Amino acid sequence: MKKRNNLRVKDIGEIGLIKRIEKLLSCTDPDVKIGIGDDAAVVRPDKQLLQVMTTDTLVENIHFNQYTHTPFEIGYKSIVVNVSDIAAMAAIPRFALISIGISPDMLLDRVEDFYKGARKAAIEYGLHIIGGDTTRSPVFVVNVCLIGQVEPEVLRCRNEAEVGDKIAVTGKLGGSATGLHLLSEIAQTKKMAYADELKEAHIKPTARIKEARIAAKEGANAMEDISDGLASEIQHICERSEVGAEINAALIPIAPGVREVARLMDKDAEDLFLYGGEDFELIFTAPQECIERIKKDIEEQLGTEVTIIGEIVGADKGISLVLLDGKRGNLSKYGFEHF
Amino acid sequence: MKKRNNLRVKDIGEIGLIKRIEKLLSCTDPDVKIGIGDDAAVVRPDKQLLQVMTTDTLVENIHFNQYTHTPFEIGYKSIVVNVSDIAAMAAIPRFALISIGISPDMLLDRVEDFYKGARKAAIEYGLHIIGGDTTRSPVFVVNVCLIGQVEPEVLRCRNEAEVGDKIAVTGKLGGSATGLHLLSEIAQTKKMAYADELKEAHIKPTARIKEARIAAKEGANAMEDISDGLASEIQHICERSEVGAEINAALIPIAPGVREVARLMDKDAEDLFLYGGEDFELIFTAPQECIERIKKDIEEQLGTEVTIIGEIVGADKGISLVLLDGKRGNLSKYGFEHF
Repeated sequence: MKKRNNLRVKDIGEIGLIKRIEKLLSCTDPDVKIGIGDDAAVVRPDKQLLQVMTTDTLVENIHFNQYTHTPFEIGYKSIVVNVSDIAAMAAIPRFALISIGISPDMLLDRVEDFYKGARKAAIEYGLHIIGGDTTRSPVFVVNVCLIGQVEPEVLRCRNEAEVGDKIAVTGKLGGSATGLHLLSEIAQTKKMAYADELKEAHIKPTARIKEARIAAKEGANAMEDISDGLASEIQHICERSEVGAEINAALIPIAPGVREVARLMDKDAEDLFLYGGEDFELIFTAPQECIERIKKDIEEQLGTEVTIIGEIVGADKGISLVLLDGKRGNLSKYGFEHF
Repeated sequence: MKKRNNLRVKDIGEIGLIKRIEKLLSCTDPDVKIGIGDDAAVVRPDKQLLQVMTTDTLVENIHFNQYTHTPFEIGYKSIVVNVSDIAAMAAIPRFALISIGISPDMLLDRVEDFYKGARKAAIEYGLHIIGGDTTRSPVFVVNVCLIGQVEPEVLRCRNEAEVGDKIAVTGKLGGSATGLHLLSEIAQTKKMAYADELKEAHIKPTARIKEARIAAKEGANAMEDISDGLASEIQHICERSEVGAEINAALIPIAPGVREVARLMDKDAEDLFLYGGEDFELIFTAPQECIERIKKDIEEQLGTEVTIIGEIVGADKGISLVLLDGKRGNLSKYGFEHF
């Protein structure tokens, strides 16, 4: 008989695997009527709330590889990237379905570590993993579908920015993209300050649920999470809201170490904080009279920095970046391009 | 400039692709507050109903390949296999999210054909595709997450079979697995009767939403869709309901042509109708006093055949298959094994 830690998925088969997953993810929430183990999961929706649905796929060698993430970290991150989309709507995450495509030769310990990582994120963000799918695949593929809920008056979208709104972001930008470079070029990382923090920003991102709820309740208009880079998200907001934007480059909060790593690796720091993906911070717009209070409340209640980086202007003015020397650049590169 | 039909995904990029998908799948349902184009989709849930959630992943060279399915057929089937899981709960499908992982070199026409196939299934089953994800992947991967709704009193699960219940199935079994063999061995198919019907059963399955609703409303106890083979689904029902089952082999409705193809291809017909996957028929149990009326109503109202194939017995009797010669076999092979 094989030792426990040498077992592979094919040794226990699909039914054996599902039973182990079910055990790892047992759920006692009274709103979950049927969890893992039937053809579908069944939940009781809250009668007063809107339902918010999102999904994201992570593919081996595209979104992660064996050098950048452990299975535990992939599980954790696969939940967080979806929670971040729910946060972007100012909603609260509730129920997740996880689908994995894996090799039959994958070690069972690694599969279980994946689910333990997902479980850790689920606990941190107060959601339940209630179903999913397991299948064979030549590459490791993860899909999470996440359902959240939100009061109709708190829901925030991309298309409600108004001319005169201030534009603000949470946290610092560029850390995740810079961390990914560090993870990919191992030799150089040891000597760099902030290397660990930057790598952590890529491996273990934070979704800004609480920040989004405060911003939305206190008057933010448009909101998004920064998953594909700051420039890309501003572009989305402007397009959907039919407005323009003016961003002050000097105000963009850049994660410590980004400029140093860019210099050492001969990369353009702007590429990292304007177009680098996966920071999972929030960007929102809010009228002048609300923005300072939102900033104060988020910073005081949650300890998350909020930085005003620009202003919404008329659509005719387009989207511009005011550079340090007062000249205007444009934000026409649209962030991380998946294709 | 490239001709329209030579365009590849990388020529228009992610934003261009999403705009095309949005155009193909435009949705005017009043319950859909936000569809494709924001960080997440937003819907108004029905206040009186339970929410049913399911997800399924299809992977190139595992679930389909370029010889077995066109992109249109993959799109169509990716919706139907999920609708079938919703049917298994006697629920009604409402909202779908579709995620695809594709090569940047994939022809845009083929990607659009995929979404047209999904749209066709969505229209046929009365659901809306309201969001999803597009990403790069070395193999073509599709994930669908489907949300349905059901009245609490109509919901049916795996774990409610009772001793004395009759066991019934809709339609005919073994067609899909047999069709897959025909699709994989092209040379032999021309001379065979039913070859087209069998291939169609694999390529373009039907989900039994209406049949499930009638069965549930008229007293069915346990219900499932037959996605991993009859033997596997009976096993699931018995395990979750803590009962046994006795299936009469002579009564199992076998799709026309299955035995002939099995003989010609030197395969075991039983493997095809007992353990072959993807028939997407329903299996349900119902008390003696309901079963005939359920059968009559489904057959008369929908034209779908219902066949009683056995009975639920005590757990101590296990799961047995009564063979033609009166001997008992067992159903220990558990159907399509994904690993």
